[in-house]
Amino acid sequence: MMYQDVVRSRRSVRDFMPDVEIPKEELMAIIEEAMFAPNSTNLNSWRFLIVTEKEQKEALYEVSMQQPAVKGAAAVIILLGDLTAYTVANADEISAKAVAQGTMTEEIRQGINENVSWYYDVSEEQKREWLMLDQGLVAMQLMLSAKDRGYDTVAMSGFETEAVRKLFNIEDHLVNGLIIPIGKAQTPGFETVRRDVSEVVTWLD
Amino acid sequence: MMYQDVVRSRRSVRDFMPDVEIPKEELMAIIEEAMFAPNSTNLNSWRFLIVTEKEQKEALYEVSMQQPAVKGAAAVIILLGDLTAYTVANADEISAKAVAQGTMTEEIRQGINENVSWYYDVSEEQKREWLMLDQGLVAMQLMLSAKDRGYDTVAMSGFETEAVRKLFNIEDHLVNGLIIPIGKAQTPGFETVRRDVSEVVTWLD
Repeated sequence: MMYQDVVRSRRSVRDFMPDVEIPKEELMAIIEEAMFAPNSTNLNSWRFLIVTEKEQKEALYEVSMQQPAVKGAAAVIILLGDLTAYTVANADEISAKAVAQGTMTEEIRQGINENVSWYYDVSEEQKREWLMLDQGLVAMQLMLSAKDRGYDTVAMSGFETEAVRKLFNIEDHLVNGLIIPIGKAQTPGFETVRRDVSEVVTWLD
Repeated sequence: MMYQDVVRSRRSVRDFMPDVEIPKEELMAIIEEAMFAPNSTNLNSWRFLIVTEKEQKEALYEVSMQQPAVKGAAAVIILLGDLTAYTVANADEISAKAVAQGTMTEEIRQGINENVSWYYDVSEEQKREWLMLDQGLVAMQLMLSAKDRGYDTVAMSGFETEAVRKLFNIEDHLVNGLIIPIGKAQTPGFETVRRDVSEVVTWLD
């Protein structure tokens, strides 16, 4: 599809057609494409838990304010951020891959490792905020890539974080941000208004 | 452009052609299109400060780790989140616009106001994290919309927050997230690696 058509036809969809299945390969391709999104120091901080099984979706629905999208979607992506991404070990592993494929020199690899060690010596609150920025970036591209392939989504932050963590044994170093139900719309998403651009932009000159 | 071409050709660009100007109307159109991005309870929490003036870009460069993108871009968008977006007054103002244009009923407007008052009775830390998610979502769409129109961008979190706030007299209720230089690439963005999708996805079944 044309970019403009993807952006302007994407809507938050909350009522999905039952019995739609998304082939695993296709969902993986959507996530892979979403991962072209820029991310903080290329630390690839995102983690994706995929829920497709009926009983698991129903359990998640109960701790997500019983929002029908969670039960009705073909899959629900639980988007997480990994606090341990801010380590030299993680940066080094990713850089090693770039060096191996010839898109990064050893010198740059070393420079990044040094950067990570001082730049990310910050509070957990700061790290969590950066994880949220990374999650927002990848989530937007994921939703557009889904739309481009004929699937609909909705980004939700309305869920009981602790209950969701307990339900899926989410480890302490993984931080919850959004959950994204994905499927095909049964009821189209409704048109939403926005503030006028002039209300949110300040031109400094 | 085709969606796939936009996603796959967008790169983080750090070296911009000098003397490129982006017409104000075009930059506003890019931001307006970016604002189609979903956002938490449609509270339109984003604010955009636009820096185009040479001396202001140079001052911002000094407090952004002297990253050349800040000085060389045609414009730098300072992306902020408004903590006061989580108020009934703000929700009501946006909903009133939807009611006026016939895309929302008075009943739904009232329901949203009630939701906002209890759903957003949370800590400032939680609100800041939601503001970051909103910023990530809109930033991604902004960067893709810019690319679709022939412009390049880079999302940066490496700046001295307090110094930037002081420089532009940013009010206390506005929270810094990303800054986004925008212009036309002089040096193409380099190809980056990502972890394999199988390393970041866990399939729960």
